[in-house]
Amino acid sequence: MSEVYAARRTRLRDHCQAGGSQSALISRPANVRYLAGADPHGAVLLLGKTEDLLVCADPPDRRPTEGHLDEALRIHPLPGAGGDAAVAAAGLAEAQGGDSLAVEEHHLTVARHRAIRSVAPRLRLTDLGGAVEQLRVVKDEEEISCLRIGAEIADQALGELLESILVGRTERHLALELERRLIDHGADGPAFATSVATGPNSGRRAHRPTDRRVEEGDFLSVCLGATYRGYRCEIGRTFVIGTSPADWQIELYDLVFAAQRAGREALVPGAAYRDVDRAARHVLGSAGCTEGLAPLTGHGVGLEIDEDPQLAPAAMGKLDACVPVTVEPGVHFPGRGGVRIDDTLVVRPEADGGPELLTITTKELLAL
Amino acid sequence: MSEVYAARRTRLRDHCQAGGSQSALISRPANVRYLAGADPHGAVLLLGKTEDLLVCADPPDRRPTEGHLDEALRIHPLPGAGGDAAVAAAGLAEAQGGDSLAVEEHHLTVARHRAIRSVAPRLRLTDLGGAVEQLRVVKDEEEISCLRIGAEIADQALGELLESILVGRTERHLALELERRLIDHGADGPAFATSVATGPNSGRRAHRPTDRRVEEGDFLSVCLGATYRGYRCEIGRTFVIGTSPADWQIELYDLVFAAQRAGREALVPGAAYRDVDRAARHVLGSAGCTEGLAPLTGHGVGLEIDEDPQLAPAAMGKLDACVPVTVEPGVHFPGRGGVRIDDTLVVRPEADGGPELLTITTKELLAL
Repeated sequence: MSEVYAARRTRLRDHCQAGGSQSALISRPANVRYLAGADPHGAVLLLGKTEDLLVCADPPDRRPTEGHLDEALRIHPLPGAGGDAAVAAAGLAEAQGGDSLAVEEHHLTVARHRAIRSVAPRLRLTDLGGAVEQLRVVKDEEEISCLRIGAEIADQALGELLESILVGRTERHLALELERRLIDHGADGPAFATSVATGPNSGRRAHRPTDRRVEEGDFLSVCLGATYRGYRCEIGRTFVIGTSPADWQIELYDLVFAAQRAGREALVPGAAYRDVDRAARHVLGSAGCTEGLAPLTGHGVGLEIDEDPQLAPAAMGKLDACVPVTVEPGVHFPGRGGVRIDDTLVVRPEADGGPELLTITTKELLAL
Repeated sequence: MSEVYAARRTRLRDHCQAGGSQSALISRPANVRYLAGADPHGAVLLLGKTEDLLVCADPPDRRPTEGHLDEALRIHPLPGAGGDAAVAAAGLAEAQGGDSLAVEEHHLTVARHRAIRSVAPRLRLTDLGGAVEQLRVVKDEEEISCLRIGAEIADQALGELLESILVGRTERHLALELERRLIDHGADGPAFATSVATGPNSGRRAHRPTDRRVEEGDFLSVCLGATYRGYRCEIGRTFVIGTSPADWQIELYDLVFAAQRAGREALVPGAAYRDVDRAARHVLGSAGCTEGLAPLTGHGVGLEIDEDPQLAPAAMGKLDACVPVTVEPGVHFPGRGGVRIDDTLVVRPEADGGPELLTITTKELLAL
């Protein structure tokens, strides 16, 4: 794996040098992990003029960390407690004879930026922007394989839940049980806070589980994901509790299903992000659902659960092959409930069979 | 409760005006919650020249949030998706006729700060620093009561775990079970990632649970906490598995216990933070334990699990009454394991009985 990380750092270094910076300071944890294999607590990565260094207060041998640090990287421990790795790294960059340093202005705070300026006054600080995030958008097959395993784990956890008795149990307990099952099946942990929403809560995006109990006739929306080797996927389904869904439930489900299918079918290399969003949104809008829709239809996933691209009305850019995204339209009527259906897919060319569905739990309306 | 939040905002406003700023922008979530009662996702609080506003993209009625928003605060929803509440709030501050705005430079990123400057060019931006964090250090009895309930919940969860069979179970499963029990007993959720460390992992600060199983003869260190109405407490204990601890285990336990007691006894109003740290550290040091000690002996707790003050060798400042802190010395020998003992206490004057211990699980060395 060491070559993978070295190759990523080379791409970033080329980008920086094209922009006139000799060195770069990576502080956003997911970006550190992408380039170094692991992100020990508080660590930053210095792509230096003469050497790359991982600067950290808690070296991986003293405090366990997820991932496996690229052994080609030298670790520079912070002397003493309470030091700031970013500030120390800037000092090292200056000591290496660099005269410019690109930093992640969207991650560094104003206070840390000022401390860097003061410890390394000869360095010209520039903005690296989202350069690492952009490198992360297109995944290699190793990364996709981690997402695929994570999706299998989430499918298994969800499948087991559906076989258990649900009526009378609270949203909070169901969410905890799902998280336990994710770990039972080999996840590092949940990819995000598991959402279980019943009755009037169903269909709400990122609903935080409450003590409400599942009742006959409820819609039940579940959204969960597994983290596997750092990679995070997402699946969301809506079920009905009891034997016969009401007419409004069937109609609403069919509508959201049609919107989600339209979004999935729009996932082709070269499609504009906004067109994927529009495909799903149009289905909902033409049925009169325009109020209270989420600001996006889907988003990239990877080392973070919410990455670029955003599939949203004002998003700029086009899909590439090997970009994993969610497609997750939903409708929620306050006081009444609603439906969300959410898959993780990988964009693939038509010749390779079109979008690869990672989360394969059925999207039929199940009555549980 | 509304008066409590209004009084806190008044104190902050007085502080800002003494510093020459007419308005302040609070972006750090725990600070928003402290001053507004809740911190909806992405929300910021504007203490404006003419009116206080909570600016948020996801108003509490659209996306549930913890806490109860002070109803005296007007909510200003962000128009459209993807907007930044801090940037919008700065625009509102300028529109109110303010000429200066204090911002949290230790929380705002460089990129957001620049966006604020560009949307509100007539505002002079100053640094609010840790003013809200400083207000948060001394707790009122309502806040302490939330911590006390959280500590009771953590004690209960831990007590139940001790009654179950431990040998053969993994660190990860024990941690998950503790978190489930926290919620069973009424916690909002865990206060931080529950740590369970066995055998060679025992005694490590913030150890991340692994698939290692509990074995006879192990030390078992557990650190957990409950969040109750937003307030986070912490308890840590170390046990031995099997009937008779080895001599080195008894000696090490007694040493850490003595250090922790020395730290607890140093908790008096007026004591310097560093002297509390020194009291505990001195006990360990005089027994020859100086390598690999944590950089701090304890820290404040409240709306965040790691707040001011830091009880550390270089910390500046003195304890006040009604400041809740942890006292958590530990020793860890790589490859062998170690001991940590961690309590949450509230500093109280001698006349009121001295420090109030919130986490009351026994600190005898239990063999389980």
